[in-house]
Amino acid sequence: MHMMIGDFLARRLTEMGLRHIFGVPGDFNLSFLEQINARDDLAFIGNTNELNASYAADGYARTSGLSGVITTWGVGDMSAIGGLAGSYAERLPIVHITGLPPLYAVESRALLHHTLADGGYGNIGRCMAEFTVAQTRLTPENAVTEIDRVLQACWRERRPVHIQLPSDITHLEIEVPQTPLVLAEPTGDSRQVARAVEQIVAKLNAAKAPVLLIDAEADRYGIAAELAALSEKCGIPYASLLPGKAILDETGAFYLGGYAGAASLPHVREAVEGSDCLIGIGARFTDTSSGFFTDQIPTESYIDLRAHDLSIGREPIVAAPMKAVVQGVLSQVKAVSRPAPHKPAQAPIEAAQPDEALTHKALWPRIEQFFRPDDVIIGEAGSSHTALSGLTLPKGSTYIAQPVWGAIGYTLPALFGSQLGQISRRHLLFIGDGSIQLTVQELSSILRHKLKPIIFLINNQGYTVERMILGEHSAYNDIAQWRYTELPGVFNAEATVMTRVVETAGQLEETLSALHAHEHAALIELKLPTLDAPEALKKFGKAVADYDYGLFGPRNASQRS
Amino acid sequence: MHMMIGDFLARRLTEMGLRHIFGVPGDFNLSFLEQINARDDLAFIGNTNELNASYAADGYARTSGLSGVITTWGVGDMSAIGGLAGSYAERLPIVHITGLPPLYAVESRALLHHTLADGGYGNIGRCMAEFTVAQTRLTPENAVTEIDRVLQACWRERRPVHIQLPSDITHLEIEVPQTPLVLAEPTGDSRQVARAVEQIVAKLNAAKAPVLLIDAEADRYGIAAELAALSEKCGIPYASLLPGKAILDETGAFYLGGYAGAASLPHVREAVEGSDCLIGIGARFTDTSSGFFTDQIPTESYIDLRAHDLSIGREPIVAAPMKAVVQGVLSQVKAVSRPAPHKPAQAPIEAAQPDEALTHKALWPRIEQFFRPDDVIIGEAGSSHTALSGLTLPKGSTYIAQPVWGAIGYTLPALFGSQLGQISRRHLLFIGDGSIQLTVQELSSILRHKLKPIIFLINNQGYTVERMILGEHSAYNDIAQWRYTELPGVFNAEATVMTRVVETAGQLEETLSALHAHEHAALIELKLPTLDAPEALKKFGKAVADYDYGLFGPRNASQRS
Ligand SMILES: Cc1ncc(C[n+]2csc(CCOP(=O)(O)OP(=O)(O)O)c2C)c(N)n1
Ligand SMILES: Cc1ncc(C[n+]2csc(CCOP(=O)(O)OP(=O)(O)O)c2C)c(N)n1
Repeated sequence: MHMMIGDFLARRLTEMGLRHIFGVPGDFNLSFLEQINARDDLAFIGNTNELNASYAADGYARTSGLSGVITTWGVGDMSAIGGLAGSYAERLPIVHITGLPPLYAVESRALLHHTLADGGYGNIGRCMAEFTVAQTRLTPENAVTEIDRVLQACWRERRPVHIQLPSDITHLEIEVPQTPLVLAEPTGDSRQVARAVEQIVAKLNAAKAPVLLIDAEADRYGIAAELAALSEKCGIPYASLLPGKAILDETGAFYLGGYAGAASLPHVREAVEGSDCLIGIGARFTDTSSGFFTDQIPTESYIDLRAHDLSIGREPIVAAPMKAVVQGVLSQVKAVSRPAPHKPAQAPIEAAQPDEALTHKALWPRIEQFFRPDDVIIGEAGSSHTALSGLTLPKGSTYIAQPVWGAIGYTLPALFGSQLGQISRRHLLFIGDGSIQLTVQELSSILRHKLKPIIFLINNQGYTVERMILGEHSAYNDIAQWRYTELPGVFNAEATVMTRVVETAGQLEETLSALHAHEHAALIELKLPTLDAPEALKKFGKAVADYDYGLFGPRNASQRS
Repeated sequence: MHMMIGDFLARRLTEMGLRHIFGVPGDFNLSFLEQINARDDLAFIGNTNELNASYAADGYARTSGLSGVITTWGVGDMSAIGGLAGSYAERLPIVHITGLPPLYAVESRALLHHTLADGGYGNIGRCMAEFTVAQTRLTPENAVTEIDRVLQACWRERRPVHIQLPSDITHLEIEVPQTPLVLAEPTGDSRQVARAVEQIVAKLNAAKAPVLLIDAEADRYGIAAELAALSEKCGIPYASLLPGKAILDETGAFYLGGYAGAASLPHVREAVEGSDCLIGIGARFTDTSSGFFTDQIPTESYIDLRAHDLSIGREPIVAAPMKAVVQGVLSQVKAVSRPAPHKPAQAPIEAAQPDEALTHKALWPRIEQFFRPDDVIIGEAGSSHTALSGLTLPKGSTYIAQPVWGAIGYTLPALFGSQLGQISRRHLLFIGDGSIQLTVQELSSILRHKLKPIIFLINNQGYTVERMILGEHSAYNDIAQWRYTELPGVFNAEATVMTRVVETAGQLEETLSALHAHEHAALIELKLPTLDAPEALKKFGKAVADYDYGLFGPRNASQRS
């Protein structure tokens, strides 16, 4: 059948399952935007800038499975690239489409706006190649094969891809296949899969203390249900690395807690490191996931499942995808009944007096009680993510953060993206005053689309997480003090937004009750002391300073020992 | 002498002439920030995000000569890269310093935050290499030679450079030279320079209708005064390309106007294209500088001066820097007295009635009268830049825009940077509602530093410049409507900012008079009809649509002919 190239690309995106695509218009993508506009199964969602657009796309993919972002050549791309890099690090399938100048201009090396005016059109693609798993420059000749190749790679790797769509080919008609795009999951070599399953099953059947160690890929490759079933069938306790938080039920009896090397709770560390059959699900032992490389993973008894291959002890097995292997193990392993792991009782929380100034110590246990099943909970880097990492999140909840890439400002646009795709789920964001300043304008998009998140703004007058590392009192960790609760009114005069400034434990109580009945968006400013922080952050600060600045590097006065 | 590496780098920056350096802190750059903090001749200026930081650095370099920006690894770098790309395209010397993770971690390919957690540390440098003229990863061994090499390249090329400073070497002591860094301007090969000067002088002496065509490099390589003197000595008329606007006095008798191919005023086009000795100063005939490639530059009589070399007709001459050549020509050329070029009288402006709704037609002539000598005038892409391009700017004024790279949102942070370095000059910014949304938080930095710019916000309810190209009524060109004049109060409760909403010609008059006496910052929202635009923009819209979307591409209804 005949179809215009832009229409075909848009059709393929919907066949992948995309319903919304984020971005910012620019002259080189407008003709494609017209084609999207003409469809009723795909909506273009304008963001306030391209970095925010790429963060929103990431957030959307977290809860809706995959996503896209459209920018204009050069200026848009080089603003969005940081977000795409984050999606690469955290494994999110994002289709990035940029409006390239017209093909004939590119071929004749024309000196156009949005370029370095040197005739070069390779630079953007070379940058994008660092943070995407496939790249293409579409032409009328290659469009049919290239579009499918790149979209398949996006899905297969659950990582961003980069498509350059010249502005003058969107409306050219070419012959395209009638059959829809099917997103294939590689099945590997069935003999390799069988071998892997057989060995893992044997090890599991023989194990005394098996443990599952969950990382982000358990979510990205859609095997959370299988892993939960496996844990249940054999009574296997599970722990999570930071990016794997809340992928499996944290309220389940077999949930151990978060693992992070020496920074873990003792019973978690013991169970993980002492396991005689530890199965990592896409586990990456990064600095924060390993308590600064203090993890002691038992090499011989470690089974490392990765997206497309795995290792058992020291033996690598390729062409054996995580999903196929887990499904095989689940069906073949012997059911065993084991007692749930023993978890030490949590120290009871002393309730704060109503007129006491709010502290992190009082805040987070209270927040934990406020959560509901199926919440989407979003934690910005800094105090928020650190504190949330230590809480038990409710059943069915999703936790969104950027623990690997760790760009501050990410969460506000990510909230926009996630909630736009999942309107019916309650969304709660926890973000610092430092972080919100980077991307604050996306609050405007949130209100424009009538979303109703609850935003908790941790206002501790600057970059507290950094003060814990270095420069407790240094001016570079100070920031401007805004009247945050007035932002909703400035960005959207019509929106009904509940705003509060909370300074005491009593005000927190009162606010949380009000929120229980709330039907609108809310922006709650929590005032916290500048040098107060979650306990974990205080320890982390010194560890980072030691790691980053070396023996003769500077230290906060309190850190010198 | 012995010195810590970070201290040496900071010392070198001050020896270059840097007084302020922009950026955002992060754990990998904090130890270096402490070293900057300890100096009283260099101040770190925190921005609200890294893209804004790189734009601020660009703005600072526009009026203070050179600039720097500090980011943290990965997350900061990939946010700032768009700004650096702009500085590359527009030729601004910016020293970009990123805090790299500790060298030992890099060498052992540690899986750290702010990376892709794959052990790779080459990606950031490879991206930066696309938009900087020199790059380095400092080590204790190479720091002394590398720092000087890179800083020299920055100055020599007037373009960004990229320095990776590992967080664990800032406080290591090495042996460094006592002699200050001297920024060398290459002098070329004196025989080549002499030959070039001789030939140009001969051509000039023989010419009947010489013309100078000014582009950005006339400013960047500091030869505006020489060019003005040359024009005066020989009575040579001069025209400017868009990026060269106001570098030479626009009120001078020998100023022809702006040249942009067929989009020029007829007398400018005639003078430039009919010249028997046309001297281009770093002239780049980009789409917007050439009226979409309708320029007809007389090849045989064209002398093309570039930063480090030139061509005379078809003959290239290398190792002959622009500055040396212009100085040589100025001293050797015969003084001639020529009559000033004839310029057609401008049509008198009909004054608008006080209660008439504000239009572009009424607005800009009035703004032209409002300007004062030595103003710094900043025009954001879109209606503002297009309209300002057509005005005659006052003597001694500086015009800041991004006509080549053209990233919207650039000007607000650029204003911050420029005015921070030039507090005593009056700064006026003209920015659209679409553009200000991208980088609005930098208004907070402007107020925090007590700067007092006059900001004119052109509120025409969306992306009007794009509507002129495509999608007059398409939703993707709509944006959220903010209460803009409330922004200053939200970002800074203490600042005194004059805010106005102007909807009629009379209100404009009243506001401009009030501004004459003004001592504070001002944010003036100018409400303009959604589909009103400067005349030049309306024409431009159709030209862009033709160029971008090709024969069968979409058009606005009004553009089909
Ligand atoms: C894009 C980006 N720039 C800089 C950093 C470095 N950084 C990490 S945390 C942080 C401060 C966050 O401050 P805030 O959001 O107020 O958190 P809190 O004070 O609660 O710790 C900064 C600047 C980063 N991670 N990402
Ligand atoms: C970073 C970036 N994103 C997108 C664009 C494409 N673009 C060019 S002008 C423009 C609209 C500008 O709107 P506004 O500032 O309101 O100007 P006006 O309506 O006065 O023309 C857009 C989106 C761009 N140039 N740069």
